[in-house]
Amino acid sequence: MTVAERVNALRSLLHEKDIHGYIITSSDPHMSEYVPDRWKTRQWLSGFTGSAGTLVITQENAGLWTDSRYFLQAEEQLAGSGITLYKMGTPGTPSLHQWLSKELPLNPNVGFDGFCFSVAQTRELKIQLGGLGIHIVEEYDLVNEIWTDRPELPNKLIFDHELRYSGQSRSDKLLKIRNYMKQYDCNFHFVGSLDDIAWIFNLRGSDIDYNPLALAYALIGTESATLYLCEENISNDLVKKLASEEIHISDYSKICNDLMELQGSSSVLLDANRTNLNIFNSISANIHERENPSQLLKSVKNEVEIDGMKKAMNKDGVALAQFYYWLEKNIGKTKITEFTVMKKLKEFRALQENFKGESFGSIVGYKDHGAHPHYSTTAETDVELKAEGLLLIDSGAQFLEGTTDITRTIPLGELNEEEKTDFTLVLKGMIQLAMAKFPKGTCGHNLDILARQALWNRGKNYGHGTGHGVGCFMNVHEGPQSIRQEIKDQAILTGMITSDEPGFYRDGFYGIRHENLILCCDDETTQFGEFLRFETITLCHFETKGILPELLTAEEKQWLNKYHKEVYDKIAPKLDEQHQIWLLEKTKAI
Amino acid sequence: MTVAERVNALRSLLHEKDIHGYIITSSDPHMSEYVPDRWKTRQWLSGFTGSAGTLVITQENAGLWTDSRYFLQAEEQLAGSGITLYKMGTPGTPSLHQWLSKELPLNPNVGFDGFCFSVAQTRELKIQLGGLGIHIVEEYDLVNEIWTDRPELPNKLIFDHELRYSGQSRSDKLLKIRNYMKQYDCNFHFVGSLDDIAWIFNLRGSDIDYNPLALAYALIGTESATLYLCEENISNDLVKKLASEEIHISDYSKICNDLMELQGSSSVLLDANRTNLNIFNSISANIHERENPSQLLKSVKNEVEIDGMKKAMNKDGVALAQFYYWLEKNIGKTKITEFTVMKKLKEFRALQENFKGESFGSIVGYKDHGAHPHYSTTAETDVELKAEGLLLIDSGAQFLEGTTDITRTIPLGELNEEEKTDFTLVLKGMIQLAMAKFPKGTCGHNLDILARQALWNRGKNYGHGTGHGVGCFMNVHEGPQSIRQEIKDQAILTGMITSDEPGFYRDGFYGIRHENLILCCDDETTQFGEFLRFETITLCHFETKGILPELLTAEEKQWLNKYHKEVYDKIAPKLDEQHQIWLLEKTKAI
Repeated sequence: MTVAERVNALRSLLHEKDIHGYIITSSDPHMSEYVPDRWKTRQWLSGFTGSAGTLVITQENAGLWTDSRYFLQAEEQLAGSGITLYKMGTPGTPSLHQWLSKELPLNPNVGFDGFCFSVAQTRELKIQLGGLGIHIVEEYDLVNEIWTDRPELPNKLIFDHELRYSGQSRSDKLLKIRNYMKQYDCNFHFVGSLDDIAWIFNLRGSDIDYNPLALAYALIGTESATLYLCEENISNDLVKKLASEEIHISDYSKICNDLMELQGSSSVLLDANRTNLNIFNSISANIHERENPSQLLKSVKNEVEIDGMKKAMNKDGVALAQFYYWLEKNIGKTKITEFTVMKKLKEFRALQENFKGESFGSIVGYKDHGAHPHYSTTAETDVELKAEGLLLIDSGAQFLEGTTDITRTIPLGELNEEEKTDFTLVLKGMIQLAMAKFPKGTCGHNLDILARQALWNRGKNYGHGTGHGVGCFMNVHEGPQSIRQEIKDQAILTGMITSDEPGFYRDGFYGIRHENLILCCDDETTQFGEFLRFETITLCHFETKGILPELLTAEEKQWLNKYHKEVYDKIAPKLDEQHQIWLLEKTKAI
Repeated sequence: MTVAERVNALRSLLHEKDIHGYIITSSDPHMSEYVPDRWKTRQWLSGFTGSAGTLVITQENAGLWTDSRYFLQAEEQLAGSGITLYKMGTPGTPSLHQWLSKELPLNPNVGFDGFCFSVAQTRELKIQLGGLGIHIVEEYDLVNEIWTDRPELPNKLIFDHELRYSGQSRSDKLLKIRNYMKQYDCNFHFVGSLDDIAWIFNLRGSDIDYNPLALAYALIGTESATLYLCEENISNDLVKKLASEEIHISDYSKICNDLMELQGSSSVLLDANRTNLNIFNSISANIHERENPSQLLKSVKNEVEIDGMKKAMNKDGVALAQFYYWLEKNIGKTKITEFTVMKKLKEFRALQENFKGESFGSIVGYKDHGAHPHYSTTAETDVELKAEGLLLIDSGAQFLEGTTDITRTIPLGELNEEEKTDFTLVLKGMIQLAMAKFPKGTCGHNLDILARQALWNRGKNYGHGTGHGVGCFMNVHEGPQSIRQEIKDQAILTGMITSDEPGFYRDGFYGIRHENLILCCDDETTQFGEFLRFETITLCHFETKGILPELLTAEEKQWLNKYHKEVYDKIAPKLDEQHQIWLLEKTKAI
């Protein structure tokens, strides 16, 4: 079946069901960032394989919306499909909602698979298309009817994330959640997001790329809880162990039915951003909407998790030292492309104990490729590296103990003054944020300027946030905190781990980003407040040959030298002599 | 009548009307910061003369809530009244809402004068006391029934704020407001806040202390507008002039009646924070709630206003130079108290052309008094100044051209190391904010850290915001922008004038605050964004003998020296030789 044939088949179904427009997102029933193959419906229907994109099929037209990192790829993959590419963020490009407003008749039937659309997304759609008087048709998963060889539900084994890694028992976590439920007079809490479920129940899986999660729903009552998952993916031993803690297993397919049977007098706490519409509609009990309490709970790492994250950083640091050594010794001698870098990085990481995969698809951007902050190498864009220019590498790993995320920008040859200036300004920003001391209650939007000020002072800036939360053997992107200009009413709390990653991108030339993970710690309590600070936990050198030392303040230099000493002290003992000598040179004080 | 007798008289009325609790705020029907004598009802009833405080009388008890600057004064003034003082912000003190929740029976009748309570305040009260099932009784102004010699409405002349000062005609302003009304399909806009009315109609008055405003309501239609004011306070000539611009005058008392008669199909734009409940309840037409559009419009100063504000700064600078010269020459020789300083400051300012009064009650805090950021000298607290310690002076003036607001902290003798350190840290913060360069869209909560970082780094902080908007011959405190940690989703725009006033307060010892006004200007536009910066417009030296130069960066020193040169260059030409020599010394580079 060609893409055009698939689209036509879907259109016949639209006719049959009297649906005027059908929306296919990149989501699964759990609102995941990465989705199992079974839910790569947009990819199957359109042929476009990028990780982000929304497809809309009307009876006459079809459009796909994606962002700048996929413009080239989408153009090629959509060629001849009859699907028009809409480049998000490009002047003059209509938004999906604007386009729909023009394409649809008055009082249209707008359809989508209600399992793959969140309650919040549905409300937004209704608001945006309010004038049209739309009627939502959420009951048909139309792609399913034509995708005959659609992958089954994933069947990877679910495993216990032992207490020595998680640091907090399921019962303790459930107790906290039940206390929260009580606060809002709820006797049930529905959880649809896989990271929340994995954290609450100390379970992990491999159903999703990069995220060590298992497909499941959870319904937490006041005394017991039920996990809805593919029963064949869990061992009898684990089932028994969970049962002894009043956590019962039911089949993944039974969640809606059980929700329908809740007493009308029950009150269910749920998160409208993390619950799909069909689940929501199954509930006849009272609904109390709040952000999942586990979002905040899991963002504050306990001591075991912090220790685990530091162990993960140490292993990552060893792998990175080996990789950068290899890169330096081979550049200009062996054929190395962006893909080679991705492969080698993974190989070095895989040598470390308890490695469980990468935490996201590595961004390896050479020269102008680096100017796209979310660049993703494809067969078409892959390019050979030479002993010149800047190479941006943003990558991370999953270890049983924790998750890593690090960006370094490597000068593969001599840099010019402009490149060095930009390299140094970005570094100043990263260091300034890392050095921050601030009172309790300070939010990310209060701190963000520290990472940008050196750039702003020279009329420069970057178009992405500075920091996102990072999970512990969990999603590499998590909330609720963030460090960015945009308002996020969540204080940075002791125990939170956040990235510190300012950047600078010169379109057509190069991109620079320096990223470490920073752990929020208690600093001192004075009569003027309780003060917090950050501890940098990532362990990898910065290429000092990219730095113009005269642009750094004394404090910034001191920070860098102290950091480099720490990197050497912690990583060198795990390296052979050759690598040690090399790392000593790399971490030399400036 | 003693206070106890007044309270008893009110209580009889409560009995009669079956009201369980009656609330008396410090507000007038226009939600003003300062109110005409007629609305000093809380003061009359309780005897407490502070500017902020809320009084609640129940059938059994009475309580007054005020903040720390008035604790001492309120304690004395409430003694023997039977009214309990509740010190806001003191641990263990119930909030007014908490107290009411305990004092009131279920389903209570809660009363207040609906003219002195905003729509938003009423909603908040209902939410906070939600569990009680309260019934609001807003129709009785009970104080009025017992206050036999209550002051009449103010009767000061209303005058035209000429185009050469306002820089924008009434018609231009009304056009902008009508365009805004059109956006929301409104054919009327009710305006209750006096600063909005004064700005829109280019009118000023003297009905309120410190704010050059006239008592009025306004109802703006699509073709004409009506001002409701005390007709005897406006000249026939001005009435005619306004009429020729389709602005009609009606009596202050007629507003509710006219609102009641609006067509049911009309749609009225109004601001729930700036409209009193009785006004709101008079409207049977549709209501569309938005912040008054004039709030944002008037915050962005036009060129004539900017020029006027700078002229005002210049005059203020001359008066301040004369005052500080006088203070330095007389301290330790003549008897000078905090009150003397207030008087002298006003005298020097009054010598300047177009002086129209002070812009707020001067804060003159010597030694430990300065540690209360909003300290207000009373006969009981007034104290003689000696040639030692720190004196904090926060004061401002109204000139026809513009409004000023400035704080300086003066070492009256030699300072110790700790005092100098704090003096310098606060100055660093003030300078860092003044030097900021930032892209369009940046909000005050993004910038605030610049003013605090030097203090935070040493475990210090201050408990107030860093910056408030300042009007042009208008209120010294205005929105919508602010610079503080708390979220305020309003970008700092070119043309906005904001204060830059970090501080530091050592309870029992001293307070330090340095305050300049800063004008937001365009800086440069690069391929990475449109950048803005601040221009400092206040013109008065800082006492360099309070500074530890080694704590300042090279850039901060450069800023200070450049600023001092500008102060000298702009102010010296207006001074006699003696003062010039003195100012040259005061503004010497460090």
